[in-house]
Amino acid sequence: MIVVKAGGSKGLDMGAVCSDVAALVQRGERIILTHGGSHDTNVISEQLGHPPQFVTSVSGHVSRYTDRETLEIFVMVTGGRINKLLVEQLQQLGVNAVGLTGADGRLLEGKRKDTLRVMDNGKRKILRGDFSGVIERVNAPLLQGLLDDGYTPVIAPVAISYEGEMVNVDGDRVAAAIAAALGAETLIILSNVPGLLRAYPDESTLIRRIPAAEADRYMDQFADGRMKKKILGAVEALRDGVGQVILADGRIEHPLQTALGGAGTLIK
Amino acid sequence: MIVVKAGGSKGLDMGAVCSDVAALVQRGERIILTHGGSHDTNVISEQLGHPPQFVTSVSGHVSRYTDRETLEIFVMVTGGRINKLLVEQLQQLGVNAVGLTGADGRLLEGKRKDTLRVMDNGKRKILRGDFSGVIERVNAPLLQGLLDDGYTPVIAPVAISYEGEMVNVDGDRVAAAIAAALGAETLIILSNVPGLLRAYPDESTLIRRIPAAEADRYMDQFADGRMKKKILGAVEALRDGVGQVILADGRIEHPLQTALGGAGTLIK
Repeated sequence: MIVVKAGGSKGLDMGAVCSDVAALVQRGERIILTHGGSHDTNVISEQLGHPPQFVTSVSGHVSRYTDRETLEIFVMVTGGRINKLLVEQLQQLGVNAVGLTGADGRLLEGKRKDTLRVMDNGKRKILRGDFSGVIERVNAPLLQGLLDDGYTPVIAPVAISYEGEMVNVDGDRVAAAIAAALGAETLIILSNVPGLLRAYPDESTLIRRIPAAEADRYMDQFADGRMKKKILGAVEALRDGVGQVILADGRIEHPLQTALGGAGTLIK
Repeated sequence: MIVVKAGGSKGLDMGAVCSDVAALVQRGERIILTHGGSHDTNVISEQLGHPPQFVTSVSGHVSRYTDRETLEIFVMVTGGRINKLLVEQLQQLGVNAVGLTGADGRLLEGKRKDTLRVMDNGKRKILRGDFSGVIERVNAPLLQGLLDDGYTPVIAPVAISYEGEMVNVDGDRVAAAIAAALGAETLIILSNVPGLLRAYPDESTLIRRIPAAEADRYMDQFADGRMKKKILGAVEALRDGVGQVILADGRIEHPLQTALGGAGTLIK
C-alpha cells in the first residue's frame, strides 16, 4: 500500500498526480491519496470577505488562526472543492475514488488545540477560539473496507475532536498518520521541490538518502518551514512501522512513478 | 430502513432533524439522510461574484442553469459545507455519520443533460453547457456496507455522469432513488409545509392520505412547483418497491417521529 500526500503548495501538477494514481491502481496497487488546501482556502476566504489570519507562535512558527468561520470555509474548500475535483478527475481516469474528511466516520480523531500562544508586537499573548488539532487516532477499518471493495480513498485535512468538533489539521501529518495506521510500505510526500535540499533553493543539492535514525539531525540542519513538518511526519510514520518515506517532486509528469523509481529524498 | 430528505428550503430546523435521526439510530433504526442546498448555493454564489442564473423551460418550469463554475460552487457548498456541518452535528449526537456526494464511489450515476430548452423573452432557445442530470443507477452495496458497519450515510445532491462529470441533481429525486435502490420501508420528505395542501398555503387543508394509484391525479390537481417534484419522487419510489412515502413538516421539534406517528401526507 502507498499513501500519497499531494497539493496545498502552488506549482503541483494535480492532473499528473491523478494520472499516476490511475496507472498504479490499474497495476493492482492500493493507494490512498491525501491532500492539502491552504492556498485555495486563502483565495476563497478573501472572496467571502473573511481574509485568512496568520499568527506567529512563541517558538517562531507561522500558522493559520482558525476561528469558527475560517474552519467552516476550510472544510468547505478542502472537503467540498479540492476533494471532489480530485474524485471527479480520478473517476474520469477509471479510478473509483471516494472522498472523505476526517469527520466522516470519525476517520481522523484527535485533540482540539483551542488556545494558541502567540507573539503580538513582541509580546506573548494567548489567543482562544482556534479550531485546529492533532490527530491521535485513525479509523483504519473504514479505509481498509473501502480498499478491499476496490475504492481509492481521497482524504481532506480535517479531523474531528473527541467532543465532535471539526478541526483543521496539517495535511502532511494526515498522510503520516494514515500510513502508520495502515502499515503502508511507502509514504510519498509530494511538494514543489525535488526533496530535501542541502542548500535551498539550489536543486542540485538534493539529499538522496537519509537513514531514519538521522532524520532529526537532517531536519534541524537543512529543513525549514513546511519541509520541517514533512520530515516530522516522515519520522513519525517510520517510527510507527511505515517501510519508507519519499519526499519527491510534484511538479513533474510522472511524480509517483518517478519517486518510486528512485528520485527524491528517501528516508528509510 | 428509513430514507429522509431534509433541507434546501428555508425554515427547516436541521438541528431538530439531526436530533430525531440520533433518536431513531439509537433505537436501532437504519437511516440514510439526504439533503438539498439551493439556498446556500445561491448565497455563496452571490458572494463569490457568480450570481445564480435561473431559466424557464419551454414547459414552464423554473430551474437553475448550472454552468461549470456554478457546478463547482454547488458541489463545494452542498458536499463541503451543508454535508459536513450535518456530519458534525450528528457526530456530536453520537451518530457515526459519513458524508458523501454521488460522485464518491459512483454512488449516484446518471445522464448529464447538457442542453436546456428554455424560453427567453417569449422565444424558444437552446442553452448548452448545463451540468445537471438525472439519476439512473445507485451504488446500493456502498450504502449497505456503510449501514452494516454502523455508519449513517449523509448524501449531497450531486451525481456523476457516465463520462465522469459531476452533475447537479434534484435532492428529492436523490432520496427517492436511494429509497428505491435499497428497498426502504419508508421515505420521509421534509419541507416547510405540513404536507400536500388542498388549498395552499392554508395548512388546515392538509391531505392526510393519498392512495399510490391516485398520486398522479393529486399531483396534477393540488401540487405545484417544488411539491410536484416531491410527489414525482414519491411515485417513482413506490413504483420501485418503497413501502410508503410521507411528506411532512420539517419546521417542528420532532419532525421524523411526528411524521412516523401519523402526521403529514401519507402516500401508500
